Amino acid sequence: MASSTSILSTDQLFVTTALKAWEIWLSRTTKFFDNLSDERMFEEIVPGKNRAIYIYGHLLVVSDAMIPQLGLGTASYAHLRDTFLSKPDRAAADLPTVTELRAAWKEAHARLETLFAELTPEQWLAGHATVSAEDFAAQPHRNRLSILLSRTSHFGYHLGQLMLMPHS
Amino acid sequence: MASSTSILSTDQLFVTTALKAWEIWLSRTTKFFDNLSDERMFEEIVPGKNRAIYIYGHLLVVSDAMIPQLGLGTASYAHLRDTFLSKPDRAAADLPTVTELRAAWKEAHARLETLFAELTPEQWLAGHATVSAEDFAAQPHRNRLSILLSRTSHFGYHLGQLMLMPHS
Repeated sequence: MASSTSILSTDQLFVTTALKAWEIWLSRTTKFFDNLSDERMFEEIVPGKNRAIYIYGHLLVVSDAMIPQLGLGTASYAHLRDTFLSKPDRAAADLPTVTELRAAWKEAHARLETLFAELTPEQWLAGHATVSAEDFAAQPHRNRLSILLSRTSHFGYHLGQLMLMPHS
Repeated sequence: MASSTSILSTDQLFVTTALKAWEIWLSRTTKFFDNLSDERMFEEIVPGKNRAIYIYGHLLVVSDAMIPQLGLGTASYAHLRDTFLSKPDRAAADLPTVTELRAAWKEAHARLETLFAELTPEQWLAGHATVSAEDFAAQPHRNRLSILLSRTSHFGYHLGQLMLMPHS
């Protein structure tokens, strides 16, 4: 009985550790954009590269797309994927306003937080929606947790770029 | 019996998933530098920012420092920390050669791969060397695995910056 309890909490601890890493990088990225004025959102990270607003929208749609990828429901911002994922910066005819994006960022990540908290360790290890049953049998590391870890480092990837912007 | 086997492999699967994420970001970063000529190592990522060689040395010493942080032995490149960690780029009097750094990168990551493979899931969940026993009791997510996840996203952070370099 004691052994079983300790094994269960071990599983949960793996999940908690991964969620903590997600929260740290999400929170660093959120803080960066919260401190960036609406005007500076339209500055390029470095000359000739993506503007901050593009990275913001890009990270938003990538987070939002985790919901269907994890098999947890329907995305809320699929209509923004063309602008912030398929197309490069400046290719879309128009963008949502910064106010709209800030609200969507908050909403999407709050939704993810709720959904993540509901998953059991076993559910985190289940295959994600974009891997076939056959591939998953051979590569059981292609699970929901791998999506979480990948998106965590994806925050790091773009935060590293954002930190190159001149300090205001 | 069957249940116990399945629980054990669950623990191992968490570790495998995290190690896979580490390998993916390490391999992307290694590939970037392998494809960068010795000459281009001395270019700045973007004007006025760190040179590629500084990021290379920085990531090397951060990886190498994981060995004592994880309580797995003594670092091999602690003598490079001043140049690539404490000091900013261009502050050190002299740098190792690119050839030396490329060899050290290979050696350090091969060493980590061996050490990581020897850790059991339980050992991954043990506290790391820089957390006190008291803090660890209250925050059991400050374990070895959290160091691995943090350093994985740290690769992402700098790789995102490196990808801003003009393509050769």
